[in-house]
Formats: sequence, C-alpha cells, structure tokens
Amino acid sequence: MEKVIMLGKPVADAVKENVAKKIAAAKMRGEIVGLAIVLVEGDAASAVYTKRLVKLAESLGAQVHLVAMPADVEQVEVLKAVSQLNADADIKGILPMMPLPKHLDAQEICALIDPNKDMDCLSPLNAGEFYLGTNPWAPCTPRACMAALNYYNIDLKGKKAVVLGRSNVVGKPVELLLLQKHATVTICHSRTVNLPLILRDADIIVAAIGVPNFVKPDMVKEGSVIIDVGINATDEGIVGDVEETSNAKASAFTPVPGGIGVISNAMVMETLTKNL
Amino acid sequence: MEKVIMLGKPVADAVKENVAKKIAAAKMRGEIVGLAIVLVEGDAASAVYTKRLVKLAESLGAQVHLVAMPADVEQVEVLKAVSQLNADADIKGILPMMPLPKHLDAQEICALIDPNKDMDCLSPLNAGEFYLGTNPWAPCTPRACMAALNYYNIDLKGKKAVVLGRSNVVGKPVELLLLQKHATVTICHSRTVNLPLILRDADIIVAAIGVPNFVKPDMVKEGSVIIDVGINATDEGIVGDVEETSNAKASAFTPVPGGIGVISNAMVMETLTKNL
Repeated sequence: MEKVIMLGKPVADAVKENVAKKIAAAKMRGEIVGLAIVLVEGDAASAVYTKRLVKLAESLGAQVHLVAMPADVEQVEVLKAVSQLNADADIKGILPMMPLPKHLDAQEICALIDPNKDMDCLSPLNAGEFYLGTNPWAPCTPRACMAALNYYNIDLKGKKAVVLGRSNVVGKPVELLLLQKHATVTICHSRTVNLPLILRDADIIVAAIGVPNFVKPDMVKEGSVIIDVGINATDEGIVGDVEETSNAKASAFTPVPGGIGVISNAMVMETLTKNL
Repeated sequence: MEKVIMLGKPVADAVKENVAKKIAAAKMRGEIVGLAIVLVEGDAASAVYTKRLVKLAESLGAQVHLVAMPADVEQVEVLKAVSQLNADADIKGILPMMPLPKHLDAQEICALIDPNKDMDCLSPLNAGEFYLGTNPWAPCTPRACMAALNYYNIDLKGKKAVVLGRSNVVGKPVELLLLQKHATVTICHSRTVNLPLILRDADIIVAAIGVPNFVKPDMVKEGSVIIDVGINATDEGIVGDVEETSNAKASAFTPVPGGIGVISNAMVMETLTKNL
C-alpha cells in the first residue's frame, strides 16, 4: 500500500478558494468583511501566529482589524474592546489570541464575544450547541483534523480512534467530531495507564498534547492513520507530538509543519464567512 | 472479594437529606421553592415518572407546579408557558418531561429555559459550560452515575471506562464526567465494531443504550464495575441494559430497578437547590 502524506496545503487551498469567493460576493453586495484579532502582547508564538493570520485574511479579501493590547492590560479594557467589536457591523469575526496572560479571565472574555462573531467556538453558547450537535462550527483545529481525514478519504465508520489529549481546544472537540462520524473513540491523557498498548490498538491516532515527539514507533500500529496536531518549538526546529520515525508505520499521516496547522488557519477564515 | 450491590437508595437518601435541609432553610427565609414540571400528555412513561417526581419533591418540602398540556399542544403555547415560568420568582426549577412529541421543537423549548432554572442541563448555555468544565450541574442521570461510583468508593483514576451509548442525555455527558475523574474513556455505539472485545477490556462499564439485556456475561470482565442506566419495560417487567447474569462477574454493579433511577430522581431535587 502506498503511504499517504496528508499535506495540509491542498486541503487548505480548497477551503481558501471557497472563502475568497464568498468574501468577494459579500464585497460586491457592499459589505465589509472585517476580522478582528485581539492580541494581548507578550506571547511570542501568538505574535507569529497573528502575523500569519493577518496575511492570510488579507490575501482572501478580508479586512483585518488588529487590536493590540499591552501585556499588563486590565480585564475591563479587554471586555470594552470586545463589546465595541460586537457592536461594529463591519466586524464579522472576533478572535482573541490564546493563551491570554494569567491575570486575565479568559472565560469571561470568551463569554462576551457575540456568538455569531465567535471564530473558534469559544463562546459557551456556541460550545454548548456544538456539544449537543446543533452547531457545525466546531473549533478550528479539530475541524482541520476532520477536513484532512475527509480530504484524504480516510473512512472513520466503526474505526478505533484514539485521541491523545483532553483539552477544550482540541482533544474534547475532536473526540466529538470523530464520534459524529461513527468512530469508536477513546480519549487518553496524562493519567492513562498502559498508553502504548491503547495507542497500538488504534486505527486512527490524533495526537494533541503539545509534547515534542511523544508518540514513538513502538506505540503505533502498522497501517494506522496519524494526525499530529502538535506544533512544538524545539532546538531542532518545529516538531509535532509524533516522532517522525513513527510515521514510517502509518498508512497515512500529517506532517509537521505543513499538516494540520495550515488547515487550521484556513478554518479560521472559513468561520469568518459563516454569516455571509 | 465481596460483591457490592450498588443500591441507589442510600445514595439517594444522602442527597435527599441535604436537599430537604436546604429547602427548609429557604422556607425559613420566606422563599417559595417551586418546581415546575411541564408535561405534554401522551407518553405513558413520562406520566409515571412525573407522578414519582411530584411525590418526591413534595416530600422534600418543594412546591410542585404541574403544567400539563394536551398531546397536540402547539409550540407557541409551550414557549409561552416556559416564558411565564422563567418570569415567576417562586419557580426555582423548570423540567420539561422528555421525550416531547415529535411535532414540537424540543431544542427551541430547551433553549428558552432560564439557565438558572434549568433542571437537567438542557439549555445550550448550561450544556456548553458543562462541556467546557465550568458548570458542575451536569444532567441528572450522568450525575447519578458518578454519585453511585463515588458513594461506593470506586476508584476511577487511570481506569478503563467504556460508555455504551452516545446520547446527549447520558452517554456524552457521563463520558465527560468520567474523563474529569481521570478515567481513560471509550465511547461505543451502534456502529462500533468488535464491541464485546472492547467491553471485556473495561474496568468500568456504563450501559446507556435502552436495549433490554444487551450486555451479556461474555462481554464482561471478571471483577469489573457495571453501571446500568437502562430502564426498559418488558413483558418480564423492568429490566436494564445489562443481563442480570452479567452482574455475576462484576465486583460491583447497580441493580435495575433500584439503582441509578432512584439516584437520578434525587439529582433533579438537588438541582432544584442550586440557587438557594
């Protein structure tokens, strides 16, 4: 069997093409498609990510409104900014860059975002509707995982999927999405006993723990499908949660970089069009 | 090892005692603790369940406000009733009996319930906060499962739990609760392949599919813990999702009837006190 390298680019390109068309059509109707990015300074990765998103959004015809705030900004100032963005009809999407500094109450900020303008299913109402199965706008990274699986024709029905990580950002939502596609899903985490044994039993692995090279070759079944969500900065450059040699055993895998990350960015843009 | 029959009564009694105290204290302060049950007629099981809840609530000092509606009631009438209950300060809890008839939009009705008065985590906002981990008021039946496990000192950390069923009412929320307690959780359903093999690997089984006697002895590991959420009316009376002989292999199990059901009812009453 041929090994499939699940490159993110073609998946992202298909999404972006569609987004660009929708934005163009909205502009023809005289609408402004504004994406507001709320960046509290101090996190290097967020700054890099923001630059990338700004460039991408502009390349697709969106208007970016960057709200940069100092690292010591007070909660009330962030809330005020979000309120103003909520009220601004030209702003179609609001994305606060995570993680926010510890002194801020991220939960309160996310809850204030107009659910219609919520770009990453951060609002508890959106999260609830997603969890209950009535909101297709899952958070962007889990949606990127599903888009990759779909694009590369990975059948999920009845398959054993193991999700590594239980965060609200990836682990829990990707588990729900895999479940919607009728996979049998196991969710593993730091307290899991006999993790290698469980992973070796998986037809599909989604690794989302943010630990460089965590998944070793002996934890992977021959022929499995590996989705690596990790983007870890190391001395050797950006690496995933899956050791590169583990992918040798996979029938298909997403590379890092160039895999889920680029699709995830495109998903932010797709979400921006949800009300166009 | 002694086999533990996880009777629901002592678990429910402990909850009820606490609830009665809180309601008594509220009444001392001059508050009325009203529980509104919205019953659309036509479902026999709902009628029986309603009677039981009314009796239980009254025995604990709550005032029950039964809103009975004909089977062909229109959506707008149900919404109007919920709005009135939302506005009534004496009503501390609202519980629409499920399932509602097919011609009604249950989702719209649930979304209208004041989240503070929502007795079973039906409101999407409550569901979202529960899913995100910031609302401890999970739906009543999954909370009952956890109360039973806690009361009978079943250790969950690192244990393999298998949830049978993926409903919003039991399967999905009990999975999240087990995950919060650091179990490694697999969620199985009708499309799961090799289900017996997966169940036989479980330290803890939560069966919630509503299929009488589905879990056979050969699907159960010796010494496992079995939580049976099923309450199925059959010619042989009420039976669970787990065949009785399967429990012979368990180290602990909940009987049906007399297990999760009675705890679940007590949990509705506990939820009634959440704002007292």
